[in-house]
Amino acid sequence: MSTGEEHVVGFIDLGTNSARLLVVRSHPDRAYSELNRLKEVVRLGEGEFIANVLQPQAMHRAALVCRKFVEMAQGYDAENIVAVATSASRDARNKDVFLKRLRREAGVDVRIISGKEEARLIYLGVSSGLKLGDEKALFIDIGGGSTEIIVGNQQEYFYLDSLNLGAIRLFTKFFSPLETGPVTQRRYKKIQRHVRQSSVRTIQRVKPLKFSRAVGSSGTLINLAEIAAKLCHPSGSGSVDVLTRADLKTVVAHLCGLSVEERAKVPGINPERADIIIPGAAIIDTLMEDLNLSEIRISDRGLREGMPIDYLSGSGDGEWMDHRTFRKRSILQLGHSCGFEEAHAKHVAELALQLFDSSKAAGLHKLGESERELLEYAGLLHDVGIFLSYRRHRAHSYYFIRNAELLGFDETEIAVMAVTVLYHHKSYPRRKHPQFAELDKRHRRVVRILCVLLRLAESLDRTHGQVVKQVEFRPKDKKTTQLNVTAAGDCQLEIGELQNHTWSFKKTFKKRLVLSLNGVEIDEPTNTDPQTVSS
Amino acid sequence: MSTGEEHVVGFIDLGTNSARLLVVRSHPDRAYSELNRLKEVVRLGEGEFIANVLQPQAMHRAALVCRKFVEMAQGYDAENIVAVATSASRDARNKDVFLKRLRREAGVDVRIISGKEEARLIYLGVSSGLKLGDEKALFIDIGGGSTEIIVGNQQEYFYLDSLNLGAIRLFTKFFSPLETGPVTQRRYKKIQRHVRQSSVRTIQRVKPLKFSRAVGSSGTLINLAEIAAKLCHPSGSGSVDVLTRADLKTVVAHLCGLSVEERAKVPGINPERADIIIPGAAIIDTLMEDLNLSEIRISDRGLREGMPIDYLSGSGDGEWMDHRTFRKRSILQLGHSCGFEEAHAKHVAELALQLFDSSKAAGLHKLGESERELLEYAGLLHDVGIFLSYRRHRAHSYYFIRNAELLGFDETEIAVMAVTVLYHHKSYPRRKHPQFAELDKRHRRVVRILCVLLRLAESLDRTHGQVVKQVEFRPKDKKTTQLNVTAAGDCQLEIGELQNHTWSFKKTFKKRLVLSLNGVEIDEPTNTDPQTVSS
Repeated sequence: MSTGEEHVVGFIDLGTNSARLLVVRSHPDRAYSELNRLKEVVRLGEGEFIANVLQPQAMHRAALVCRKFVEMAQGYDAENIVAVATSASRDARNKDVFLKRLRREAGVDVRIISGKEEARLIYLGVSSGLKLGDEKALFIDIGGGSTEIIVGNQQEYFYLDSLNLGAIRLFTKFFSPLETGPVTQRRYKKIQRHVRQSSVRTIQRVKPLKFSRAVGSSGTLINLAEIAAKLCHPSGSGSVDVLTRADLKTVVAHLCGLSVEERAKVPGINPERADIIIPGAAIIDTLMEDLNLSEIRISDRGLREGMPIDYLSGSGDGEWMDHRTFRKRSILQLGHSCGFEEAHAKHVAELALQLFDSSKAAGLHKLGESERELLEYAGLLHDVGIFLSYRRHRAHSYYFIRNAELLGFDETEIAVMAVTVLYHHKSYPRRKHPQFAELDKRHRRVVRILCVLLRLAESLDRTHGQVVKQVEFRPKDKKTTQLNVTAAGDCQLEIGELQNHTWSFKKTFKKRLVLSLNGVEIDEPTNTDPQTVSS
Repeated sequence: MSTGEEHVVGFIDLGTNSARLLVVRSHPDRAYSELNRLKEVVRLGEGEFIANVLQPQAMHRAALVCRKFVEMAQGYDAENIVAVATSASRDARNKDVFLKRLRREAGVDVRIISGKEEARLIYLGVSSGLKLGDEKALFIDIGGGSTEIIVGNQQEYFYLDSLNLGAIRLFTKFFSPLETGPVTQRRYKKIQRHVRQSSVRTIQRVKPLKFSRAVGSSGTLINLAEIAAKLCHPSGSGSVDVLTRADLKTVVAHLCGLSVEERAKVPGINPERADIIIPGAAIIDTLMEDLNLSEIRISDRGLREGMPIDYLSGSGDGEWMDHRTFRKRSILQLGHSCGFEEAHAKHVAELALQLFDSSKAAGLHKLGESERELLEYAGLLHDVGIFLSYRRHRAHSYYFIRNAELLGFDETEIAVMAVTVLYHHKSYPRRKHPQFAELDKRHRRVVRILCVLLRLAESLDRTHGQVVKQVEFRPKDKKTTQLNVTAAGDCQLEIGELQNHTWSFKKTFKKRLVLSLNGVEIDEPTNTDPQTVSS
């Protein structure tokens, strides 16, 4: 996304309770105008959190709504549809089934994002609707499955967190589906205690950050503010832009005293929330208590509004960091926290990119910008696992990349980087390896290519001395590719190591690789048999 | 091991090529005298490194020799037999089968140790035979499966490393079993290239440490020195205590020119090494070249000699650190490198120990000192996984503990700590979890107990404020145990969290747990159903 032209994009946020669509027309310089927006209660997470399995009916509802959204976006001639799924999908053991179903039935590739990434997008969406300047604000978004908590000002965030607290999640945990009566104080206190126990560490971290105001987003909060306005200020003086703790207490006491059926008729309530509104209220009630908030401003923006900002951040200048710069920062952060050898990491990444570009020019593959970017990051992080131990460090690097909640990526991109790193030396990707097998066919092909480029790049800095300056593939004949290496000093070990990997080049690209060092062709590698190098 | 009395202990080092026994009588203050020593070539690693599977014949030979060793030690009325296995066993996919077989056929529990731990024990064994003082030395030990490299002076080591280079391992990699002819220079260079590629990073790290001499141990080196003495100094002037690089070159050239059969007759050679001596020589040859060593002193000590020093370090004062202090240092090192919250970690460890002692006094279990120690370390490390991400941090802590190559522990002890940490909250140990299932029955029982004590301890510092000062189990009646908590301030959240875990106490100890805070009994927990807290 870096052209200055106009085009239409659809954004879908597939949450645990609701699904939301936003169709925008993008203008040059990151600006965009909304063409349409839609929201549907899907209850994707209904019945899920008992055993972390999405229920067939819920998946069916989600697929139908997604299809409707896709059709609507297509009605605007959308060039692209970006769809993300959050807590319910993230935690589901059958998420693969679900994603396949969405692809088949709704024709859309949905990306599952981590809780931290969700928090980042919510921050982008909500903060962009406020005039904050340098003032620090606390952001709270109470979803169906998770609650995001962020501290940030207009320019940047200082804290991102995602808690496994949500209106549907807690409803499932504390109520049986058939319970429809009033909620006792004892039960409400029990929910509060759970919220407190789950959030105590976050509260402790957030408090010292000294924000000057609190902003709440999400359907739960909007709905609570609406009920409060009607219930506590029936004359119409109450603002739905603010929810005070005093009013919230009144609302909670009132709602708890009613059955679900009665609750559904309370003025201002969204009847579809009549059951889950109380667990939702318990979350914000407890957080406000523990954070000493007397009131919280209500925003009608959220994740959905953050998506186009993030998407369009690749072009022009604006308040937010360029999407790629941003992703790279997250990658380098992991590298630094693991004390990676920066010069080596950056050199390998740079060589890998040279290999990517020249192999593409030589017609060896047709991968695009996004795979190129992932290869660069795999290069930067290929050794981070050494933090834990050199032995098995490739497996550790894989584990770190998979689990570090890198920001700005979806789960598939993270998996591609991690698996590429796993194979940057020794064993070649095989279907019997579970890490490789869980990728779909297209991404298995991507990894096969990227991991060969990465292993060649890594070989070219075997001694970590950055001796090899330039590297380039050139087609030689129909069956052979030449790799031209330009080095500024002795690189005997690098060349020897490179020769250990020519077999993997052949396996992936079906061509023999011959090497040339500073313009002089090098003898046939003496060691091309995978058996003798892969043990 | 901290009594001042005398007793006999047998130590077994089950290596990739040889098995060694040392029987000692320990005296007060860490001193000991040798009663007997034995060495047998077992070739446990023969045929293994192709697919990392110990061969049945090799396991059979090892079991026979171990049995013989055990019987010999028993002949001295040994009170204890300590046995470790290294590279061949470490890398074997069928190590469980092998360990079971040793238990059944030789009656000995063999502990598999990591490469770094092996390096540490070799350092203890070799350095204790030298007068080094503050002088820094490089130690090299070339085994059948791995090569250990250490830099240290008399008091401490500064660098420990273990490379996957060994005489049997490289023989398997570069020769077919039927090859018995001379070795071409080309083949020898190929082996050297592999050694160089595998050791380049280690060489780069070791060089700046500026040691003033090099010491080599292991059968390979002793044998090469013996051949060199006979071949290069037939008059008898050659010392077998030193191997010079010049002599080594002569030996290599001579041996390579001969068939295996001819090599077996070379004066000084151990005929059992006639095949694997050349790969072994290639390792030391390459290392001496790359480290610029003109000579290396030969020591006849090694891992086997390090074992009693390590074992006896628990008592009296001596040159080496107390074994427990030493293990704890390794634990704290991991904690610090992950930036753990030290005050919380230490408080949880302390509370866990109080729970351990009083539950033992209350007759809830019969675990001993060693399990108590592991519980303390589990307490110290329970949160290290937060380094990577808070989400799933228990699983990350497990991964970190399993893979950090903690020093001073065997693999089973490491597994017990890691699995205890994995279960310090939420889900209870179950056989369907692979991490738990891989423990044997006794250790599964140990983990069930330790994880409950740890989760109670962790609950008691839920807010990380170290409010709870003292905690003690007291038997109340036949079916009930009371837990007396003494706190210096508000600990409502701690007590609430504790109540979430009383069910796990009941599950493990078959007794109800009632709580008392500062002398006042607390109402029945309102939340004892595992379902509602374990999701």
